[in-house]
Amino acid sequence: MTTHRFEPTVWYNTLGTHPAALTVQSGDIVVTETIDANGWDKSDVKRMQGPNPMNGPIAIVDAMPGDTLKVEILAMTPIRATGWTRAALAENVVDPTFVMELPPRDRSTWRIDRNALTVTLENAPASIANLSFPLAPMIGCFGVAPALGQAISTATSAEHGGNMDYRRFGPGSVAYFPVATPGALFFLGDCHAIQGDGEIVGTGVETCFEVTVRLTVEKRGIVWPRGETERDIFTIGNARPLDQALQHATTEMVRWLAEFGLDTLAASHLLGQAVRYDIGNVYDPAYTVACRLNKQWLPKL
Amino acid sequence: MTTHRFEPTVWYNTLGTHPAALTVQSGDIVVTETIDANGWDKSDVKRMQGPNPMNGPIAIVDAMPGDTLKVEILAMTPIRATGWTRAALAENVVDPTFVMELPPRDRSTWRIDRNALTVTLENAPASIANLSFPLAPMIGCFGVAPALGQAISTATSAEHGGNMDYRRFGPGSVAYFPVATPGALFFLGDCHAIQGDGEIVGTGVETCFEVTVRLTVEKRGIVWPRGETERDIFTIGNARPLDQALQHATTEMVRWLAEFGLDTLAASHLLGQAVRYDIGNVYDPAYTVACRLNKQWLPKL
Amino acid sequence: MTTHRFEPTVWYNTLGTHPAALTVQSGDIVVTETIDANGWDKSDVKRMQGPNPMNGPIAIVDAMPGDTLKVEILAMTPIRATGWTRAALAENVVDPTFVMELPPRDRSTWRIDRNALTVTLENAPASIANLSFPLAPMIGCFGVAPALGQAISTATSAEHGGNMDYRRFGPGSVAYFPVATPGALFFLGDCHAIQGDGEIVGTGVETCFEVTVRLTVEKRGIVWPRGETERDIFTIGNARPLDQALQHATTEMVRWLAEFGLDTLAASHLLGQAVRYDIGNVYDPAYTVACRLNKQWLPKL
Amino acid sequence: MTTHRFEPTVWYNTLGTHPAALTVQSGDIVVTETIDANGWDKSDVKRMQGPNPMNGPIAIVDAMPGDTLKVEILAMTPIRATGWTRAALAENVVDPTFVMELPPRDRSTWRIDRNALTVTLENAPASIANLSFPLAPMIGCFGVAPALGQAISTATSAEHGGNMDYRRFGPGSVAYFPVATPGALFFLGDCHAIQGDGEIVGTGVETCFEVTVRLTVEKRGIVWPRGETERDIFTIGNARPLDQALQHATTEMVRWLAEFGLDTLAASHLLGQAVRYDIGNVYDPAYTVACRLNKQWLPKL
Repeated sequence: MTTHRFEPTVWYNTLGTHPAALTVQSGDIVVTETIDANGWDKSDVKRMQGPNPMNGPIAIVDAMPGDTLKVEILAMTPIRATGWTRAALAENVVDPTFVMELPPRDRSTWRIDRNALTVTLENAPASIANLSFPLAPMIGCFGVAPALGQAISTATSAEHGGNMDYRRFGPGSVAYFPVATPGALFFLGDCHAIQGDGEIVGTGVETCFEVTVRLTVEKRGIVWPRGETERDIFTIGNARPLDQALQHATTEMVRWLAEFGLDTLAASHLLGQAVRYDIGNVYDPAYTVACRLNKQWLPKL
Repeated sequence: MTTHRFEPTVWYNTLGTHPAALTVQSGDIVVTETIDANGWDKSDVKRMQGPNPMNGPIAIVDAMPGDTLKVEILAMTPIRATGWTRAALAENVVDPTFVMELPPRDRSTWRIDRNALTVTLENAPASIANLSFPLAPMIGCFGVAPALGQAISTATSAEHGGNMDYRRFGPGSVAYFPVATPGALFFLGDCHAIQGDGEIVGTGVETCFEVTVRLTVEKRGIVWPRGETERDIFTIGNARPLDQALQHATTEMVRWLAEFGLDTLAASHLLGQAVRYDIGNVYDPAYTVACRLNKQWLPKL
Repeated sequence: MTTHRFEPTVWYNTLGTHPAALTVQSGDIVVTETIDANGWDKSDVKRMQGPNPMNGPIAIVDAMPGDTLKVEILAMTPIRATGWTRAALAENVVDPTFVMELPPRDRSTWRIDRNALTVTLENAPASIANLSFPLAPMIGCFGVAPALGQAISTATSAEHGGNMDYRRFGPGSVAYFPVATPGALFFLGDCHAIQGDGEIVGTGVETCFEVTVRLTVEKRGIVWPRGETERDIFTIGNARPLDQALQHATTEMVRWLAEFGLDTLAASHLLGQAVRYDIGNVYDPAYTVACRLNKQWLPKL
Repeated sequence: MTTHRFEPTVWYNTLGTHPAALTVQSGDIVVTETIDANGWDKSDVKRMQGPNPMNGPIAIVDAMPGDTLKVEILAMTPIRATGWTRAALAENVVDPTFVMELPPRDRSTWRIDRNALTVTLENAPASIANLSFPLAPMIGCFGVAPALGQAISTATSAEHGGNMDYRRFGPGSVAYFPVATPGALFFLGDCHAIQGDGEIVGTGVETCFEVTVRLTVEKRGIVWPRGETERDIFTIGNARPLDQALQHATTEMVRWLAEFGLDTLAASHLLGQAVRYDIGNVYDPAYTVACRLNKQWLPKL
């Protein structure tokens, strides 16, 4: 097992079959610094246009279509003292008749305290003076090259992952992606210091991180991205409306439970009373819903 | 403050301007036993046809259109040793191409242990043998008479509340409903021993409870139902698709935050990084989404 | 067969099990004058509050739950010289980011020429000076009392009909409604001098008509409203989003084709290449989609 | 003006920035033979895998991002004696509870009579024996390379066009696409001998055509595809659910009407009473809605 330090010189606005910038063995660790959603790096230098420039792709030797790429998010360290957000709810998350009431979508700055591990709004309105949250790092956009030779914009997401903006994809969690092309071609970027459910202002606190991931090829197939935290397993659906994203995620969870020996009857009983749904984002072209289950309910394999 | 024991003799399949079965003062407590979603009582006697027969209506003196009815759920005690569920995921929560894979929608029985406070599936498939959950009571359907003289089926929900099937409406929580008719006319029923997010088998564990609520009229107006737990405040949107339910809930939360002195700019900043969304149900004719916020982020009033 | 002239003295904002204002035999003809969507009559007198006050209910002797009520729209004659519309596209029919660009939702007046049979915008902007359409009468809201003792707002629609705002429900067409209560209890009102697809300004040209209908009970069951013009048959789905309205309408058409001897295979072949969809309204709480088929493709029975 | 006969040797499953197979001047005519949605050519030889292999790309000299590519469909001549369809309604166009009733999605063959100009189902069920439609050719999938270097699957559609499956894109009509890359890079394929609204069996009658188009660069910008028939102008929205596709199409029509001097007020008045909506497809990953207006209502420019 090798640890690679990956310093990209080009970035991509699509997840596609671009030339590998780094090739690793299954099980290797990669450490890399990301730039923000608009392409500004840790020194406030613009390195690439948005949306969501990606580090990558990283090819994993022996990954083949039909396999699964396991991505362990081992660490995320903020490397810039500021992040930014949009200052208004997105038009599509309020009643259409309420859109006229929204403030301008200005850009706001947040101070990231890397000792206190806090994220604090600068120039906050008096009613929320000193608004400060605990740092809660997450990867907004990551995944693999999609099938058919597609190159899919980092503004959106699909079976290959992409811009899911799901807050549980943080340090300590694991993501799984369906490999669609030889080498898998893994990309990552668009990290957030914190983000609420749904990414309803259209951003988290957008900033730069040093991210450490372990990339492992698994010889089994999945259809939609999956994930794991210490407590839960979850599946991801990316689509509009939320209803369809939820259908994809639920169906993928039923397929996962089958690997634990549960047929659709048993899965129905278990999920019916124990399932949790999270809304990853309700802003991007494809919305993201996670279907989540506490591991305590899983049969011991 | 008086405590009333309310024993209904008729039940309703709609929330509407039916004759008051009980009239109470604002602040009074009502204790009542509910029958299950199909109208079976605690002694397994069929008392009324489904869907979701309601106890009520209870008129609250002085409640007027434009007011808000505060409903504190003080206690919920299970009064039957069994509950039932449907044994299959609903067709609309999986991919349309996966519907063919679903098991029959048979009725299954769960044993409710009123000492151990557990809910256990009888005749469980081997893969989930001994599946048992902690009791987690909730009210599936409650609310007030809607505006315009409407009588709305207890299968669905709208601004007046109704069949929201949201698992956080349990003991210790508070619900708020917009009063649309003199006396408010409060209804409740359809209690569950436990239910997952989304009510994705079309039921929770359907059974009978003794429910204790305090009913208080507040002289302020709301548009959609609101609620409160010890930790959180939340707002409810009822509509299809989930996207629209989420828009209603988010807009109502922005209105609520205005009562705390937050304009739309401040509300955007706060919700953008701190909001949580729950899916109450994704099964009934109207779906239910809750927009939820930890009280720690609220300005101290 | 009798012709009844029905002059209502009360109007309703819901379709529900209200006391019959008139009782007729199956096959009878009823002539009645409607008031407009806001309750103004042909003499510009406000007779009732909105939304969409209904004439009715008319009970039809022998109509029983499970039957179908056939409503032939024999004639519609405008009885007021003016109609009105909203002057802005509804917020929900444009991109959420475009809502800010919409004009105010003022009320505009149209002149109805009952000799020339035209509808002409008064005070039209210069770019559309003299905008004038041929008169194209239609009934916006009609139907029967719904099941379960529900009383459903005339702002919306469901299986019982209601506010479908579908422009093909005009003179010469036939509507069919599923009877859910003894006597069927037929209501009508909210007539338009013309309306585009989708009712995207939230109104047609709202005015008053003398409407002549023949009401006939048929001893067969339907689930959703159906209709017929000289050329086409069609089925109606009322729901949100449009996707679900379309599912209801298509499913009902498959059921109708079964009455012509087509199984789901034959219906698939026929509809796949010959179906037409219309959007009745995309404004009301429930949207309306019609699934339409030219009668030339039907087997001769 | 030159006429090019274009015989592709490679085909693409994405619309992307692939190497130009042919370069033409603005105003030139191209004649090309398409293969069917599964890649079978006019001689029943499999030339390429599905979905919807594209002829192209054709670069148009001087086309630059921000321009519009005008595509006149001058002629479509069927070049194979058979076409095929799926024999079952798609699962997503009927009620989820009705999916179990659908027949298998077998492939069916249709006979194309190139003299009589008819399309006739072979081995039709008795109830629709001799089912035969007039030939109604259309292009299912065409458009230009999308922005950002994306390569978008021919299974779906977006601003760049793609798999819209809209039956009015037939001979005599004009399509307009927003140019996003130098040369525009035009693709076409997936032609149908006939198709109903919505492509609700997931196919039209899939076959091969000789297609003649004239390609002209216009120095004006559009956001979504537009089109024109002799009688109508129309705009296209591609998204899910249908509601969002309709929002895109309506917004684009408002932008188009602005080019005719109509502000949003005038556009609201006109569209409110005169608009027509068509459902192109309700099957592909992105649905297609057309917003259509009879040219008689346009100001004379």
